[in-house]
Amino acid sequence: MQKYKLVISYDGTDYHGWQQQPDKKTIQGLIEKALDKIAGKHIPVIGAGRTDAGVHACGQVAHFKADLNLSKESLLTALNANLPKSIRIVSLKEVDIHFHARKMAKSKIYMYRIHNSPNISPFKIRYVLHVPFPLDIPSMKKAAPLFIREADFTPFSSNRLLYPIRKVLRSEIHESGHEIIYTVEANGFLRYMVRTMVGTLLEIGKGRMETEKIEELFKNKKRTLLSPTAPAHGLCLLKVKY
Amino acid sequence: MQKYKLVISYDGTDYHGWQQQPDKKTIQGLIEKALDKIAGKHIPVIGAGRTDAGVHACGQVAHFKADLNLSKESLLTALNANLPKSIRIVSLKEVDIHFHARKMAKSKIYMYRIHNSPNISPFKIRYVLHVPFPLDIPSMKKAAPLFIREADFTPFSSNRLLYPIRKVLRSEIHESGHEIIYTVEANGFLRYMVRTMVGTLLEIGKGRMETEKIEELFKNKKRTLLSPTAPAHGLCLLKVKY
Repeated sequence: MQKYKLVISYDGTDYHGWQQQPDKKTIQGLIEKALDKIAGKHIPVIGAGRTDAGVHACGQVAHFKADLNLSKESLLTALNANLPKSIRIVSLKEVDIHFHARKMAKSKIYMYRIHNSPNISPFKIRYVLHVPFPLDIPSMKKAAPLFIREADFTPFSSNRLLYPIRKVLRSEIHESGHEIIYTVEANGFLRYMVRTMVGTLLEIGKGRMETEKIEELFKNKKRTLLSPTAPAHGLCLLKVKY
Repeated sequence: MQKYKLVISYDGTDYHGWQQQPDKKTIQGLIEKALDKIAGKHIPVIGAGRTDAGVHACGQVAHFKADLNLSKESLLTALNANLPKSIRIVSLKEVDIHFHARKMAKSKIYMYRIHNSPNISPFKIRYVLHVPFPLDIPSMKKAAPLFIREADFTPFSSNRLLYPIRKVLRSEIHESGHEIIYTVEANGFLRYMVRTMVGTLLEIGKGRMETEKIEELFKNKKRTLLSPTAPAHGLCLLKVKY
């Protein structure tokens, strides 16, 4: 029996997210289907984390156990041949039998892209949020690092977990041409956490919320629904660190 | 009455090409629909040329005549607001009443992108042709300029026209990372002409056809069906020159 680690890249636009769901096209579902075809039996594929419907990935990680009479090069080729082109296995390697994609993940990095200019190229619309009116970028840049802390992130999530403490290690905004790129790294993320943080930064960028409000939201420890959740299509899971 | 010139950019993936067709989503059809909504009556939009289903454009040009009580800035904004985000009016300007997008076009430039490497990013697959095995790029580079001539291009088209003479002004291949980019400029193109030329260059790149064959095909002046037509999604109408 061998354990394999996959790095996966996908355009999430046409899928119902990572997690397997009956009668729905999901990334996990399609990878399992491809693997089952190669192995001739069902093999579960465990991802580092779920991505929501419409969210993209450059570096999602997953693992599976199998006893296959195939080199890892052939297995990689066979998997990609059985997957739609909008899902690509970037790399496949044999790992220690104790490796676990989710449990052993130390941190994850997400990127959110905002195109801030009146016009947008039709070739970018699937991958960035278009905000046609000017945003207060200096205020957004000032606010972003306020998320760097170990805290209860319930105010920036869609639901309350028993253990809602997460440690955000990096939270910053930089600009590239007309794009505002938000990068966030944490030891874990609550449901909708990145998109709610982006929604908060957008409220600040629109002048509808003061930067100081972030501190207040953390103190309340409640889901206040103050910040809208930013749309899925601007978000990309960049990397999982082990 | 005022005449307007539009420069249009679109992701052609989900459309049945430029030309208006009943019950089908076409670029021309959607622009006319947007314009009709703004004008309150039907206004025909004339394009510089048809692009096939699945073909993209960065610089398609079109014109229309209208008598609207709107600044050109407002008209541009209104048009984009009434179009899907995969179709963008890049610019709109008032032109001489005698301007004609098709009849006055001096030349058109198309670009065809081939991603030549075993792996491809899922974010590129809509816009490039993926060829996973190595191509003989030096031979393709040598063959490309052989298309520069004024000649009967029927051998590189899907049908025979009464006047099949076209003048190719530029035909060259350059590389950018894993991409092979073919650029071609001509005073006009026959149906499927660019894609058949690319198909021919791909045959040469695959070692299935000799470079000398191009000369022979021109001499025959017949549609020989020797070269397959390259898929639409790698093709983009870059610019129309006046």
